[in-house]
This record gives sequence, structure tokens and C-alpha cells, in this order.
Amino acid sequence: MITKEIFYPTSIAVIGASSDEAKEKEGWVGRLLEFGYEGKIYPINPKGARILGLKSYPSVRDVAGTVDYAIFNVPASLVPNLLKECADKKVKVAHIFSSGFKETGKDEGVKLEQEVERIVRETDIRVIGPNCVGIHCPEGRVTFARFPKRSGPAALVSQTGAGATRIVTYASKRGIYFSKVVSYGNAVDLESTDFLELLSEDPEVKFIGCYIEGVKDARRFANVVKNCMKTKPVVILKAGVTEASRQAAVSHTGALAGSEQVWQAFFKQSGAIRVDTLEEIVEQMVALQYISPPKGRRIGIIGRGGGPGVIAAEICEKAGLRVVPFTPKVRIELERIIPAGSSVGNPVEIGLGRAGASPHYADAFEIIAASPYIDLILTHLNPDAFVQWGGRPEWLHYSIDTLINIFRKLPKPVALVLSPSETDEARDVVAEAWARCLDAGLAVFRSYEAAAKAISKLIQYHEFVRSVRGMVEK
Amino acid sequence: MITKEIFYPTSIAVIGASSDEAKEKEGWVGRLLEFGYEGKIYPINPKGARILGLKSYPSVRDVAGTVDYAIFNVPASLVPNLLKECADKKVKVAHIFSSGFKETGKDEGVKLEQEVERIVRETDIRVIGPNCVGIHCPEGRVTFARFPKRSGPAALVSQTGAGATRIVTYASKRGIYFSKVVSYGNAVDLESTDFLELLSEDPEVKFIGCYIEGVKDARRFANVVKNCMKTKPVVILKAGVTEASRQAAVSHTGALAGSEQVWQAFFKQSGAIRVDTLEEIVEQMVALQYISPPKGRRIGIIGRGGGPGVIAAEICEKAGLRVVPFTPKVRIELERIIPAGSSVGNPVEIGLGRAGASPHYADAFEIIAASPYIDLILTHLNPDAFVQWGGRPEWLHYSIDTLINIFRKLPKPVALVLSPSETDEARDVVAEAWARCLDAGLAVFRSYEAAAKAISKLIQYHEFVRSVRGMVEK
Repeated sequence: MITKEIFYPTSIAVIGASSDEAKEKEGWVGRLLEFGYEGKIYPINPKGARILGLKSYPSVRDVAGTVDYAIFNVPASLVPNLLKECADKKVKVAHIFSSGFKETGKDEGVKLEQEVERIVRETDIRVIGPNCVGIHCPEGRVTFARFPKRSGPAALVSQTGAGATRIVTYASKRGIYFSKVVSYGNAVDLESTDFLELLSEDPEVKFIGCYIEGVKDARRFANVVKNCMKTKPVVILKAGVTEASRQAAVSHTGALAGSEQVWQAFFKQSGAIRVDTLEEIVEQMVALQYISPPKGRRIGIIGRGGGPGVIAAEICEKAGLRVVPFTPKVRIELERIIPAGSSVGNPVEIGLGRAGASPHYADAFEIIAASPYIDLILTHLNPDAFVQWGGRPEWLHYSIDTLINIFRKLPKPVALVLSPSETDEARDVVAEAWARCLDAGLAVFRSYEAAAKAISKLIQYHEFVRSVRGMVEK
Repeated sequence: MITKEIFYPTSIAVIGASSDEAKEKEGWVGRLLEFGYEGKIYPINPKGARILGLKSYPSVRDVAGTVDYAIFNVPASLVPNLLKECADKKVKVAHIFSSGFKETGKDEGVKLEQEVERIVRETDIRVIGPNCVGIHCPEGRVTFARFPKRSGPAALVSQTGAGATRIVTYASKRGIYFSKVVSYGNAVDLESTDFLELLSEDPEVKFIGCYIEGVKDARRFANVVKNCMKTKPVVILKAGVTEASRQAAVSHTGALAGSEQVWQAFFKQSGAIRVDTLEEIVEQMVALQYISPPKGRRIGIIGRGGGPGVIAAEICEKAGLRVVPFTPKVRIELERIIPAGSSVGNPVEIGLGRAGASPHYADAFEIIAASPYIDLILTHLNPDAFVQWGGRPEWLHYSIDTLINIFRKLPKPVALVLSPSETDEARDVVAEAWARCLDAGLAVFRSYEAAAKAISKLIQYHEFVRSVRGMVEK
């Protein structure tokens, strides 16, 4: 297995390290140093100068010790010969960052990619790329961007580098951290299926996100995903299902995207969670990490603002959740504590008082949670409205205190919708509230749509797991 | 017509102004003073003390001069008698902020609302509400929140106060400012149809957003919207079309929401633009204000990042836009300037260089814009990816300079997707870039979905206008 060499290499050659140190500081060598990489780094540069304090070598052949991993940052035309040198040197894995291959659609690029393919076939070297940003693994201290050094239960397999960067960045503000990220571009050798197979067996990884333009062997891919789903959920954005985006995928990574019907059948059979945008990959991960499995689709909604409650109910229903009417018992209990003018149906509109510290919030929450006809609770706070009506941004922390306290003792899953503030006054307070909720293990979403979609798919996933287990038990 | 008294009252009584000045500073009197209201303010308070420097009166009957407008901030049970006093005093318009009426679903509230209804019927006073936040009109210097004092071509008619506040706040960071906003709650008297009729004749208003839970007279509403659409577009979020949300609307404002089929027919016949969320109302307004009418649905996509381009193409196609392949002529011209490794199809992946100042961006933009087969251009910059790869946040301004320059001389509509930064380093730079684009008159959207939806509906609107004009001309 090459998991170790890919994610925890003990030595890395950077082929094409620049002797312009200011440039290389922002390049691969600089990035590895900044990320605290602890293995040996061998800058490969024809001039053989020292680069960022490291001895450089004219060729990988000149390195005395073994080299686990090589990063290629040279023009495409130079790649085949240098790759052959790496294979001769018994480098285990080459990450070809360089572009200019099959994705150009030009004869020269296609030919260069075929040469790389031939070397892969004829030698023991394994290749990530070309045309990709490669690997991020905080515990192995390797990365391709200024990402958090914190590791977490998430993994990402992505054919797009810009997209992978967007996902990890977006995730880091949402309490999702990655144990492993792979951007694999044209996939001349290793592709999504291979990485999924590695990650399915990785005990650090609890769920996996995927951005896929195409796969080489659809049957093997489906089998690997099915197998992975037995132990951990896979969230997939399948790009390139419309005509123009299919063409775009060909131009981007030379991928053959496959028809929408085939992919629909795949999602149905495998149980993999399908999403439509990069952000939804992250939001699905938030649901997977932070929301305990709901028993069913019956959702109770409680929050500030009548109109927003109506919209929340509508969005939840459209996403396939059931906003069931409260029982007379629940309504009577709510009417006892909620002032006139607020709704006691489902959704409940809760007056939080100007300071946001209304005890009704906690009480109403508990009344709803105690109902056997409610499986999970969605709450929303709309701080901007209250700031605009003269409240202080800090009031939000009282509501958050209340919410976290309830959440800690509540036997049912809870999710919070807290849109990022659009006011300068409340922006930082809302961001802080997000962080506090996530620290307490409470799922937070930026919008009703994001929450409803992610929750509905989470429930679908647990339904799938139960049905598969049911089958296995039979 | 009561437009003047509603939006530009020359005198306002605040019934239930608090003698606790700290409280009233954050209340209706304080808000009017802070917003620079220039007419007379009469605080009405049984104690008759001075409130925030203003003489207060035990009753509106004690005011010597005329009163155009009265704001009710008293318990529901007191409203009928005080409203009668206002009617006797010949107050033109009463805004009943108080809740506790029909929306409670209780006999007492229903009875109180019926009393208000009777006074409206038997006297000349007109009522906004109850259970609503009322009016915002920067030129009349009246408001219900800490909103920008800047006026603009937008108007909003909303049954939800929290939602209206969300919309105006969200809009203010997106270059959309409001000439008039109305939140009308239970609509015992004036309702959406009435306000739409007023606004359709208002020369300050160029487009109107609506959040509606229910209307009293569907036929009249449809006629007013149809008439309005002759001169200005109406964007409508019809809430309460699913079962639970319909119930929620009843609890919220006592509205009868109507069936989805009826509303579908209404949207088809009227040509009103239908949206699903509060945020989409604003994004549709951005399209209406900032994007000149495209001739058709053929969109060219140019931006940074291959994967994001594929996703953008897919989202545009799903939204009903046509991501047509470029002609061989365009492809050949693009290949001349774009380095190997980037896509020259539609979408175009553009290398912007680390500093973001690549001349290829401008050149490629112009090549695409010159094609007679492209009706409008969507561009995306993904600054977070490049910041994470070692770029400086400020590089973005070079791209924005380039973009604004192209936009100014380009004969075709352009829209930019620029997601708010998720990094602390780039957050303010991206926000500044937004503001710069909007100042230059260039439409900016937070996501591909938001852009694609708003653009597609904009085109649908212009198609509708052309078809109606076609009919009229025949």
C-alpha cells in the first residue's frame, strides 16, 4: 500500500524548485517548510544552489538517500524524462503539478500524457496528476495551500484544485477539518477510485467528500463506493452532467463524464450522498459530524421572526422534511408561556426579548423536544433584524448560552440556522457565535436551504444504512 | 391618494411612547429622531412628560395641530378606543405595530381585529397592520430600523417585518437601496394590493419586491400586478404554499394563502418574477438594476479555476441559460493568448498570474464579447483559492481594475461571481471589491447559483416584456 508514501512521505524532492528564493518561499519548498514538514526536502534545480537554506541538487539522481515523493513543477515537455529519472531512483510517488497535457486538447499535450502513462505502466512509480495541486495531510505535514494545521475526521478527493481549496477554506470556518485532501487532476494513474479505496480503510477518516468529473472504470468505482458506504458516508458532487459542463470537464481534466442516467442509478444503488455545489459538500459534512442520527423526518421549528418561520417551514417541506402540526398537548403548553402575538404552531415564533435572554426560548424548546412526534429541532435566531431594531449585537450570546445549555441536555438532534451578519456591528459577534456553537458540538448553517438540504440527506443516509443493515441481518 | 401621508407625513403621533427615555431612545420616537425626521413628532403618553426633548400629550385629542400619521405601540386591547380617537382627530393613517390580534388564533384577538376593521369601515382613517413594523422611506425620513439613509430605485412590500429587515440589510451591501418599504402584517385594511397600486404609480420606484403570505382579493391583486408589470418589474416571494407553511402563515398574519396551482397560473399570466427566498428577492433586484437587457440566453463564462468553471457551466445550464460552445474562430483567437493547461472552450479558464493583472483576462474577455453568438458574459475570480496558494489579497484589485475597464467599454451585459471570502486575510479586500464593482455599475453575486437564477429570470422578464409589447403592437 502506498498510503504512507502519499500522505506521510519521509522525503520529498521538489523538481523545479526556483533558485529565486522569494519566489520559492511562496512555492512548494516554502509551503512545506511553513507547514512544518519534518522529513527531508530535496530541491531539484539545475544550478545546484542553496534554496531557502536547503542544499539543492541538479537531478533527483544526485540525491544520496531515498526519495519517497516527488513534486513536479516544470514545463510539461520536461516531465517524461524527469519522471523516468524518478522511477530509476525508486521514488514511490510523483505528484505532477505541471499542466499542459491531455486537458489542452492538443496533440502535443496528449502525446506527453501518453508518455507519462507508459512510464507508469513500465515502472513501479505511481503518479498523482498531472495538472493538479496534490496532497494536504496535516499529520504528515504536507500541503498545497495555506490551510489550517488542524486535522479532523473529514477527507476530500477532488479533481479540481481551486475547488478543493474553496472546500477546505469554507470548511475551516464551519468546524470541519481534514485528515486528507487529494486533488488529482487528469488522473493518468491514480484516480478517485484509488484514493477512495485508500481512505475507506483509513481509521482517521470518518466521512469523505468527492468532486468528480469522470471515472475510468465505472464498475470498480461503484464497488469501491458501495464498500466504503458500509463504514463511512461518501458525499459526491458529480460535475459535468449537462452538455456544456461535460465539454468543460473534457477541457479541464480530459475526463469522460458519463451520462446523467448512469450516475442516477449509481447514486440510488450505492447510497452515496449527492450534492450540487462545493459548499454543499461542506454543509453535508457539518450534518454528518454534528447532528446525531434523527429517528425520522418530523422536524420542529422554533425561532425569532414570524415570516422567517413561514419560509423555514416551506423550505424544510420542499427538502423532504415533515413539519408536522404540534399535538394539542404541546400547543397548550406553549400557549402558557408564549406571549400573545407569536405563533404556537409548528413553526413556533419565540419572543426573545431585546436582550435575547428570554426563558421562554428554553422552555418552548423543551416542550417541543419532549413530544414523541418530533424527531429533531431546527432553530433560527435572525440577529440582524434585532440589531437593526435597536438591539445590541451582544444579545446574541445570551441566546447562544441558552441554546447551548438546552442542546447539552436535550435527547434529540438540533440544528441552528444563523446567517452571517450583513451589518458591520454584528459581523464579528455572529462569527463568534458560530464558533461557540461548533465548539459545543452544535450544527450551524448559514441558511434554511443549506440546513434543510443537509438534514434531509443526512436522514436519507441513515435510512439507507438501516436498510442495508436490515438486508445484512436477514 | 394617501401616498403622501404614508410615506411623507408632516406630523406623526407615537401612541404609547415611553416616558422611560432610555427605552424610547431605542423606540419609535428615538428612531424617527435618529433618522432625521423633519416633521412634528407628538409622543402620546398618559403622564404627559417631556420625552427626548419633545412635549408629550395624554391623548392625540390634546394635540393642537393636525396629525397625518399615528404609530400604535400599546397593548392590543387598548387599540380600538385609541384608534377611534385618531379617527375623530382626522388622523389620515394609523400604523398598528401592536400584535395580539387575529394572528393569535384566539377569540379575544379575533374580536379586537374585528373592532379595528369596523372603525376603518365607519371612518376615514386608513390602517397599516396590525402586527407589523410599518414604513421605511428615506426621503420622508421615516423608518422602522437602523437602515441606510440612502434612497434608491427599489421598493418592498412585505407581510413580514423580520423578513423585510433582512432584505433591506442584505440589500444594502449589494448596492440595492429602497425608496419605500412597507411591512403590513395582518392587513386589516391596507394590504399588498393597495401598496403595489401606490408604488406602481410612484416615479421614484423602478422595481418592486414582495413577500406575500395571502391576499384578500386574488383577482384585484392579479390585475394590479399585471398593470404594474407594464411599467416596472415585480419580484414576488409567495410564502405558504406547502401544507405546514400555509398553517404557519395563518398563525403569523391570519392570511389565507391560496393553493400552489392558483399561484402558478398567476405567475404565468402576470409575468411577475417568482423567487423562493428573501435573499433571492435582493439578487433579482441586483440583476434588474445592474444588468442591461441581454438579447438572449447564450452565456459565455470566463474565470479563474478549472473545476469552478465546470460547476459554473453546469449551474448556468440547469438554470436555463445556454452555455454554447465557442466558434472555431473564437477558440483559435483564445488559444493564441491563453497558456497551455487552461481551457479555451466555454467556460474559459484564465490564468491571472499571481498578481492578478494578466492582460489575457482583458483580451479573452473582448474576444468572447465580440462573438455574435454570445449574449452576455459571466466571470468568476475565486480569490480565496489564490490567497491560499500564496497570493496577496490585494491582487484582487488588479483583476477588478481590469474587469471594470473592460466592462465600461463592452457592448454586452456582464455579471461577476465573487464569493465573500472565508479567510480573515481576504475578507475586507473582497468586500471592498464588491463595493467597487457596484459603484461602477457592475452586477456582483455571491455564488454561481445566485447569479444563474437571477440572470435567467431577468431574461425571462425581458422575454415577457417583449411578448407583451408584441401583443400590444399587433
